[in-house]
Amino acid sequence: MKEIRPINWTGSRLELLDQTRLPHEQVTVNISDYRVAAAAITDMRVRGAPAIGVTAAYAMVLAAAELQSRERAGSQIAAARPTAVNLGWAVRRMLRVAEAEPDPGSILPKLEAEARRIQAEDEEINRRIGEHGRVLMPQDGEGVLTHCNTGALATSAFGTALGVIRAGWEKGGRFRVYNTETRPWLQGARLTSWEFQQLGIPATLIADSAAGMMMLNGDISCVITGADRIAANGDTANKIGTYALSVLAHENGIPFYIAAPTSTVDLSVTDGSGIKIEERPQHEVTAYGGMPVAPSGTVAYNPAFDVTPNRYITAIVTEAAVCRPPFDDSLRRAVDAA
Amino acid sequence: MKEIRPINWTGSRLELLDQTRLPHEQVTVNISDYRVAAAAITDMRVRGAPAIGVTAAYAMVLAAAELQSRERAGSQIAAARPTAVNLGWAVRRMLRVAEAEPDPGSILPKLEAEARRIQAEDEEINRRIGEHGRVLMPQDGEGVLTHCNTGALATSAFGTALGVIRAGWEKGGRFRVYNTETRPWLQGARLTSWEFQQLGIPATLIADSAAGMMMLNGDISCVITGADRIAANGDTANKIGTYALSVLAHENGIPFYIAAPTSTVDLSVTDGSGIKIEERPQHEVTAYGGMPVAPSGTVAYNPAFDVTPNRYITAIVTEAAVCRPPFDDSLRRAVDAA
Repeated sequence: MKEIRPINWTGSRLELLDQTRLPHEQVTVNISDYRVAAAAITDMRVRGAPAIGVTAAYAMVLAAAELQSRERAGSQIAAARPTAVNLGWAVRRMLRVAEAEPDPGSILPKLEAEARRIQAEDEEINRRIGEHGRVLMPQDGEGVLTHCNTGALATSAFGTALGVIRAGWEKGGRFRVYNTETRPWLQGARLTSWEFQQLGIPATLIADSAAGMMMLNGDISCVITGADRIAANGDTANKIGTYALSVLAHENGIPFYIAAPTSTVDLSVTDGSGIKIEERPQHEVTAYGGMPVAPSGTVAYNPAFDVTPNRYITAIVTEAAVCRPPFDDSLRRAVDAA
Repeated sequence: MKEIRPINWTGSRLELLDQTRLPHEQVTVNISDYRVAAAAITDMRVRGAPAIGVTAAYAMVLAAAELQSRERAGSQIAAARPTAVNLGWAVRRMLRVAEAEPDPGSILPKLEAEARRIQAEDEEINRRIGEHGRVLMPQDGEGVLTHCNTGALATSAFGTALGVIRAGWEKGGRFRVYNTETRPWLQGARLTSWEFQQLGIPATLIADSAAGMMMLNGDISCVITGADRIAANGDTANKIGTYALSVLAHENGIPFYIAAPTSTVDLSVTDGSGIKIEERPQHEVTAYGGMPVAPSGTVAYNPAFDVTPNRYITAIVTEAAVCRPPFDDSLRRAVDAA
């Protein structure tokens, strides 16, 4: 299947496939300043927890050229978005490499090597998630539903939840694929529909609010989404609407899966109440693509994520294992094994 | 509060406030052919079950000018959209008036009087729904959530679920109001936000998928929606996404109310399985306002309504009474009393 590579490091600068322009235009932005890289994360030119982590790693490489400001750069990059744990994880990993290198002249190549390693690991991890998860996919003709975008565009290649669907299709599974449009940012309509098209996997787009009826009517046999941060007890922060899908799946006796690398598991957070939820600008709800939808002056509330309590999650697919309840135990073992 | 009148009969033609152009433009379409009136229902220039009923009544007046084709006109108007029961109800009521009048020269004024009566009754019924329902609204500072548009624009004045919220505010209630944007057609963002603005009721717009999280977080104390058709057992067809909201309310211990006139109750349908669900064009999901959202070639599934099983409904507010389970009994009594 065709590979999508949203993040490319040229050796001196970062090339990002601008996800605000997809699917209509494939525009690459060239970034050679870590501040611009942090802004690209904030503005969602790159999004998806693993892809944010990889971008943050390369941003730290760019920051290394301004050695004096490395710590400050780390803080600035880590603050680009609050919910995805992979962001702070990548920054800390890069800072540790920098701190361990006594020769200032050697820091830059060491950081570059580490960023490349994070990117290569991410792809390998995603393929292992796909391998573990594909057996959970439904029978031929049955339907799987996914939310938001968790493919190559959200990672550095292959994807997490979308990667599981892809792995199932690559092994010959011919189940039906449904994806939500994922308002307000329309990651599903714009990005996931595009990825499935590139991969040659037939997928049907639905409004977020049609998912419940389809579950009730028996059109959906399982749901699989990604994650932005997973607490030690399995409570999972992910794109707004994930919680609703999990409750609807639970009510209809349908398995609900999360697919994410162990780097998304934050054992320092006991449960979902400790996860900070990003609130994004109102205009993402009141307008679309610069075109106002609601009347001028409308007040909107725009939380970017919600937290799905662990009781609604059937299993969490990581690169190490398929974790099942009780998650406190299974997630810790997966993190240790990874 | 400011009155919105989406349907106006001049005595010879029908003037509709074109709801495809709101909130950016207030355009009135002038209709003097019943076929154009039927098309206006199909194209959703007028929508909302009660408003569709009133429009159908005036379309029958227009059809009366072509006496030979009255039965055929009735079929064509009744077929404009399949789910709202009020459409067929209004057509049948008008046909009965025509059939009861032996003098062909008197049919037109009789039909016109009947259409005006249906419109005036609708407003009176809505005000009674508001009167019955307002005591269900939450305490000051607590939140009510509504879905789609059920205000004056969906009826002929005042509204059903939105009318209940309005009645609560008119009596001095100062609860918070949230409304979903209601993809794919964005009735919430375009029409409900506009109505609340016109009425001076502060309301906060949210993406459909944010409702679940807000219920989990305690921001929503009750949910109230309208209905397009209510079966004898209380199963309720309404805008896509209503079922999901009802399940989320149930899971979070939040009352879920339906507000509708008894003309929306279809005692000839035993339960929700007998309600035909309209499937609308794919481009409503893949594009917005003519602007493509998903990549070209994307397949979409676009059911306009879903059916909420009666077990998720706390009460159905009609002009006759607040009906509570078992609905077979309470709805029949309300229909008889109305």
